[in-house]
Order: sequence, then structure tokens, then C-alpha cells
Amino acid sequence: MTALRTPYLMFIGDSHDQLAAKVADGVVYWRRDWCVGQFRLPGCKADLKIPDMSIEEAAKAGVGTVIVGVANRGGKIPDSWVASLEKALDLGMDVASGLHKRLADIPELAAAAKRNGRILLDVRHPTQSFDVADGKKRSGKRLLAVGTDCSIGKMFTALAIEKELRARGKKADFRATGQTGIFIAGSGIAVDAIVSDFISGSVEWLCPANDDDHWDIIEGQGSLFHASYAGVSLGLLHGSAADALVMCHEPTRKHMRGLPTYALPDLAECIRVNEEMGRLTNPNCKVIGLAINTSALDAAAAERYLKETADKFGMPAVDPVRTGVAAIADVLN
Amino acid sequence: MTALRTPYLMFIGDSHDQLAAKVADGVVYWRRDWCVGQFRLPGCKADLKIPDMSIEEAAKAGVGTVIVGVANRGGKIPDSWVASLEKALDLGMDVASGLHKRLADIPELAAAAKRNGRILLDVRHPTQSFDVADGKKRSGKRLLAVGTDCSIGKMFTALAIEKELRARGKKADFRATGQTGIFIAGSGIAVDAIVSDFISGSVEWLCPANDDDHWDIIEGQGSLFHASYAGVSLGLLHGSAADALVMCHEPTRKHMRGLPTYALPDLAECIRVNEEMGRLTNPNCKVIGLAINTSALDAAAAERYLKETADKFGMPAVDPVRTGVAAIADVLN
Repeated sequence: MTALRTPYLMFIGDSHDQLAAKVADGVVYWRRDWCVGQFRLPGCKADLKIPDMSIEEAAKAGVGTVIVGVANRGGKIPDSWVASLEKALDLGMDVASGLHKRLADIPELAAAAKRNGRILLDVRHPTQSFDVADGKKRSGKRLLAVGTDCSIGKMFTALAIEKELRARGKKADFRATGQTGIFIAGSGIAVDAIVSDFISGSVEWLCPANDDDHWDIIEGQGSLFHASYAGVSLGLLHGSAADALVMCHEPTRKHMRGLPTYALPDLAECIRVNEEMGRLTNPNCKVIGLAINTSALDAAAAERYLKETADKFGMPAVDPVRTGVAAIADVLN
Repeated sequence: MTALRTPYLMFIGDSHDQLAAKVADGVVYWRRDWCVGQFRLPGCKADLKIPDMSIEEAAKAGVGTVIVGVANRGGKIPDSWVASLEKALDLGMDVASGLHKRLADIPELAAAAKRNGRILLDVRHPTQSFDVADGKKRSGKRLLAVGTDCSIGKMFTALAIEKELRARGKKADFRATGQTGIFIAGSGIAVDAIVSDFISGSVEWLCPANDDDHWDIIEGQGSLFHASYAGVSLGLLHGSAADALVMCHEPTRKHMRGLPTYALPDLAECIRVNEEMGRLTNPNCKVIGLAINTSALDAAAAERYLKETADKFGMPAVDPVRTGVAAIADVLN
């Protein structure tokens, strides 16, 4: 995809609560410098804690892209948003969205984009075509965040590792595979929206050959143990040809997300299967660390769990939020 | 998808050799009764060995659908085909194609379909939307043909098993997951063309709950060991929630199809991994037989290989072409 033009105006419309703006929250958290302001409509209950800005002010501030960082029921674009987004296009900004409904399907927006030569980017609807994966060995090093389940911290973990490696002066790039990640990276591929024949091929494109001392830190999706999405996860694992995997886990979760009758896999089993399947395209593929979401535990229980888990598996076990990921960065050469 | 209206006129255009008409060949082999004739243009080098028929004759014979059963470079629809296909629509027939280029993108065909209220079906371009898989246990029994590689006999094996079970008076339905299979079944889903989030969900839709003594015999795709397509294969395995797997293999193949540096997996390993991954959605998932493509072996070597393989794995090993699949049907209760 075309790289998004920064900086961003974060459009959160009339979000009925903070959770509805979680995509925007994530972008602000990881790329505060890119987010010059938020645009809210009357009745908006979310607040990104960055300056409120009108469309005109955003244009004056040099905003490149208005990011529709809102989730709502059905993924629709309400009529009440259209005039503001149209004005943004008229004032020279692009508009990007992760909603199901396409920006390009709204006649006013399609027309405004055309007359101004601006871009409407629907990150859930890739228009680019990819080759089928060739499975060839390529230079550079790659780390993939995998998980025992969906929505368990894979994006956060990958971004934290990118940040830590860069802070150490190492070459590292976060590679986004989901909508929030794409806004944060400024580019990427929503792999769950790719036609299934091309999952691995699109990921090979996303993290191509690179310098020998360069790390691509790839955002994972789903889980090999998720009955709905494992195909996406396996295609992503193969396409990434990862040298290193970080296994993400939430120890108190009762069942797989959205699947009440499916228990989470055993951590050791999940590590073994990910390594085994990953070795098809990279014989050295190995889980090198564990990223545990301990938000449901108190500090003492979290510390105990991390220590026990690190000892049991003989590798770093961190909580990217509570402890940071330095211990994982330490083992990436 | 809408079920295709039978019978068929097999359109093989100006195929430059017999292989270019292999989709049509497969349909004629498995559904001779549905194929009332073939339509060939001047210079066609393929012959399905069924009566040649003009578009007008096909209309008189009550043909429901013209099947474009040709492969060509780039999956295009040459201008020279358009007049004949347009006439078919004008005479009340539907047109179905498995080419990459969409019938619906050809203005003359789109207009003719519209004015006649007829259907243009591009089986590689599903328009139907599916739910995400729910992974729920469902009634009925399901068999999935899996493989050590692509293009190794999975469709043929599944169709042979359907035929054998029906000949024994058992309830069985072949479920198609690729273009040729869809023409043979009259319906189905090209899973490699499905958006990756919905692979398993589309397969749950394809083989829904059924009578306790009913077998769905599902066409497999790719291989868990194919670096390009394993994501499709895993989504299909999970969505099928198969009770029984039949492992398809070609013992003389030197490398994975399209991947010169990838050796075929060890058969025992491939069985183990398919069973292990399949058990996520059906804890009873088990490989119950082997379908070996022995076409590269002479009769004595084939017989020896089948016997040794059956003994080694303690299950029936057949060649669906040479020996039939009775020994596999024997173990399906």
C-alpha cells in the first residue's frame, strides 16, 4: 500500500465511549508526534487527550491524513461524518479508515477525492495484488509476535520491541498486519482481508530481504489454536519466515476469544506447535521469549507468574506494560 | 453460491491442446450425464469426446449453463469467445467460468445477462459473504481429502469416495472447494478465493450439520506443508471439523509443486501433523486411509508400494484410479 502521509488528525466522530476510539488511542500512544490533534463531533464521549482541532485548523497545521480511528456497530460511516471528511479532502488532506464500510463507496467522498487528487485509503480493503509466496530464504532477521489467542497483546509487544531495539541503536522496523498497526506504522497489510491464496505472499512482500543486522518486528494475528482464524495465523507464520517468535499469553483468560467452548492451549504445547510449523519456511524458527499480559493480576502475583514462567521455559518472560521488553531485546542479536 | 443449472454445454473455445481443457475433461469424467455437448471454435485442439453442439442446438437440448472449462495464459476471455457466450445468454442459458478474468467485466456479457435475466457465475470471485467460523460441533460425518502437496489427487479421491459410498446406498455428498469441483458438484466454494478471515467460516457453511449417517466428502486444497498455501489448508481443515481424513500422496514427486527447494514431507509426519491440527475442531479427527497416485510406477511397483504402505501405517492404501477406493469406503461407518 501507499504509505500514509503524516502527520495525522485523529477523527473520532461521535464515539459513544472511550473503547469506541481504541484504534485512535493506540495510534496516539505509539505515535504521539504524528497526532497533531483530534476531531470530535457534538456528543463525542471519547477523549484522546490531545488538542481538539477543526478541519481548517488541521489543514493549517499541515496534516497529511485524517485517520478515522473509530469502531462502531456494523462498521458504517454515519451521514453526520461525511461533510467533515469531504472538507478535509477539499483542504488537501487524505482520509484513511479501518471500518468495514468503504470510504470510496460514499459518493460525496469519492467525488471529493477525485476532484482534489487525494487518496481514500480503506485499510480493510486491500486493492494491491500480491504474488503467491515463493518460500525462498531471504536476508535480514525477522521476529513475529504469535499468541495463544486473539487480542492478547501481539501488536503492543511488537511495537515495544521495535522501540527497545531502536533505543539501543539497532535497526528495527515494526511491520503492521492489522488496521491499528497500519496507522501506527504508516503502512502495512491487513492480512485478514487478503484473499486466502495470497496470505503468505503478502507477508513476504511486507517483510522483504533486508540488511543482515536488521530486524523486522512483525505484528501477529490470531492464533494457530483459534478455530476461526488459524489459517490466517499459519499463512502469516510461513510468510514471515521468522527467526524468532515471541509468544503472547494472558494467563487468566477462561476461553478462546469468541469461542466459549474452546479452552486456551497449554503454553508449552502452543510453543511447540508454532516452532514446528514455523520451521517449514525457516528451520531456525524458535520461540525466544514470552510476553505475558498480567493486567488481571496484582503486582505480586504478576511478578511470581513471570518468574515461574521464565524458569519453566528457560527464556525471558516479560509483561510489555509492567516490565518492558528489555529482557527480550537482550536475546536478539 | 447459487447452484448451477444443469445440464451443461462444455465450452472449450480454441484450446490449443488437451491440457488446456482439463477442467472440462474433469467435469465430463465425473458428470457425463450433465454434459450434453461440447462447443469448440475453429482451431480447437482439444476434444472431450462428447457431441459437438452449436449454441442454438444446446438451447434446444435444454442446456441450463454454459461452462467455460478452459485454462489459458493469464486467465483471459478472448474477444473471439464473446459472441458465442452472448448468444447463449440471449437463448436463455447461464454462463459459468473459472477463469481469473470476470465474465461480468465484459460489457457485452454483463448487458446480455441483464436483459435476459440470466446469471454470470465467476467461481473464482465469490460474491457471497460468510460468517467467521464458530467452531461448534455439528451433526453428520465429514471426510476431508488432505495431501502431502498440491495437485496430488485430492479432488479425484473425494469424488471416488462419494461415488463408492452412493453405490453402497449410503448418504454422501461431495463438497467442492475448487473450480473444477464446483462445476462437478454444481455448487461449492473456491476457498482459495475467500478473504482469509472467513476461510473456516465458509467451509462450515459448505458442510453444515446433517443426518447422523450422512457423509460429507470434502475436497481438500494445498497442503499444511506447502509454503505458499498452508494457511488455506489449515482453515479448510478446521472448518471441515473432519472425523476422517484421507491422505493423498505421490511417491515419486521430487519437490513441492512450484517450490524447487522444498522436499515433500515424510508421510508419517504429514499424517501426524494433520491429525494434530485437525483435532482442534474435532477431537476424533483421524487419518483413516491413504490415496496414492501411482501413475508414475508400473503395475508391479504400484502394487508393492500400496501393500508396503498399508502395512506400515495399518490402514488402507489405495490408488483411486488403479484400485478404486473400496478399501477406504469399507472403514467409513
